[in-house]
Amino acid sequence: MSASFSVINGEIVPAELARISIADLSIQRGYGIFDFFKTLNGRPVFLDDHLDRFYRSADLLRLPVKQSRDELKSILRDLLRRNDMANSGVRITLTGGISRDAYTIGEPVLLIQQRPLPDNEALAERGVRLMTYAHQRQIPEAKSIDYLMPIWLQPMLREKKADDVLYHNAGILSECPRSNIFVVSKDDQLLTPGRNVLRGVIREKILQLAHPIIEPIERDVTLDDLRTAKEVFMTSTTKNILRVVAIDGMEVGRGQAGAVASELSRVLSRVLQRELE
Amino acid sequence: MSASFSVINGEIVPAELARISIADLSIQRGYGIFDFFKTLNGRPVFLDDHLDRFYRSADLLRLPVKQSRDELKSILRDLLRRNDMANSGVRITLTGGISRDAYTIGEPVLLIQQRPLPDNEALAERGVRLMTYAHQRQIPEAKSIDYLMPIWLQPMLREKKADDVLYHNAGILSECPRSNIFVVSKDDQLLTPGRNVLRGVIREKILQLAHPIIEPIERDVTLDDLRTAKEVFMTSTTKNILRVVAIDGMEVGRGQAGAVASELSRVLSRVLQRELE
Repeated sequence: MSASFSVINGEIVPAELARISIADLSIQRGYGIFDFFKTLNGRPVFLDDHLDRFYRSADLLRLPVKQSRDELKSILRDLLRRNDMANSGVRITLTGGISRDAYTIGEPVLLIQQRPLPDNEALAERGVRLMTYAHQRQIPEAKSIDYLMPIWLQPMLREKKADDVLYHNAGILSECPRSNIFVVSKDDQLLTPGRNVLRGVIREKILQLAHPIIEPIERDVTLDDLRTAKEVFMTSTTKNILRVVAIDGMEVGRGQAGAVASELSRVLSRVLQRELE
Repeated sequence: MSASFSVINGEIVPAELARISIADLSIQRGYGIFDFFKTLNGRPVFLDDHLDRFYRSADLLRLPVKQSRDELKSILRDLLRRNDMANSGVRITLTGGISRDAYTIGEPVLLIQQRPLPDNEALAERGVRLMTYAHQRQIPEAKSIDYLMPIWLQPMLREKKADDVLYHNAGILSECPRSNIFVVSKDDQLLTPGRNVLRGVIREKILQLAHPIIEPIERDVTLDDLRTAKEVFMTSTTKNILRVVAIDGMEVGRGQAGAVASELSRVLSRVLQRELE
């Protein structure tokens, strides 16, 4: 499934031999951060945005990064050349390192893995069904490796015939585990939660690009806003923009492709094209 | 620091060579559970209680355990014999396993590590200073590897001159990251939070043993209960019973060793003695 090679610290190693010590704080205490970007036609998409966030997450979790941005780019270039995959997802992880007492941060270990991009075509065609759930990610501004909750929720998602979960805290929405959420309100504003979320790279692009089409507003968005929404869509690196057709079994808007989501998808595609020229 | 040997699945390996794949869900998503018991004079203490909880945590996190209890005990016996340490802490971890898509649970990997017991004598002498913090552990009944928050809080603890953190949710206490909390109320009841906590092995022993000395009550305990408490103490496998002398910089009770904590410590010591006979 994965590409042939991975990176541990600066070194390219065969993926099946990529291992780290069980004394690492990621395994001992679930402590680490990562970022994830995609390549199209072998070229990284929005790499600098992802590296910005990678360093920001590391900083938020107090993990020193030994590699400069240029060193990191150079390692990534070497890895992409060796693996030679056209379209892929690349994950850069920074672990808490080997801890002397299984508690204190050690010297972080840099891991890079590349794998084929998941295929979202069927989901894009059908639209996403969400289940809401009361939960707040810890230290939400950092892209930590903490995905205990969404992995634990998988059987419940299957049971409720939902594709993904949308977190809320006392009725105020935050995000999906790997995506941001946008709502076209009944007043034709584009709402997205303004706090307690990870600022996704596509989220930021949408906020920048939306203006000619619709007014984007970062503010608290509630479960009630969902009920009266004309459209709901989610954004992420792998999914770009995916329209949401049902939430907790209730149809969203008229249950059809949203005009705003479609128009924003076209604008985003053009930006992606330019990025790859 | 660590013992010479660890275990990966059934196999005893030199500790410095104990490694797992970076595709494991513990590293990818912070997904795994563990338990931790101590040995005194080379003998496990309350092993069956810890194994009960290990299997319960695995079950709660939907991780199948390949090893039966007898197999696990047999592996532990072999490891303890090889490492030959008198007093130690033994950690049994079960990871999410290698995930085909970096999201779905794979075949869990069993890890066992042994290390010297941390020395709590100075802390026992001086008493513990706690800092309260608003946080709720996710899936609290399971001993998951999620310690993102307490590790992240370490610099704040140092800044506030606190030894550990005590979580509360809207003023209702839950637990410390690695200990349970007990409060001797102004009405001479022994209170401990009854929900949203991990049921520590020493916590359960105290609830069983307290009756002749003081009435133990599991119920919601508030920040206000702390302010009027006669005594506060914490319990854990490594610490047994440690009295708390200050919370958020405020002295607890008269700031002296509590009579109840001392008496319970004596009773617990006798039970520990019997366990080792």
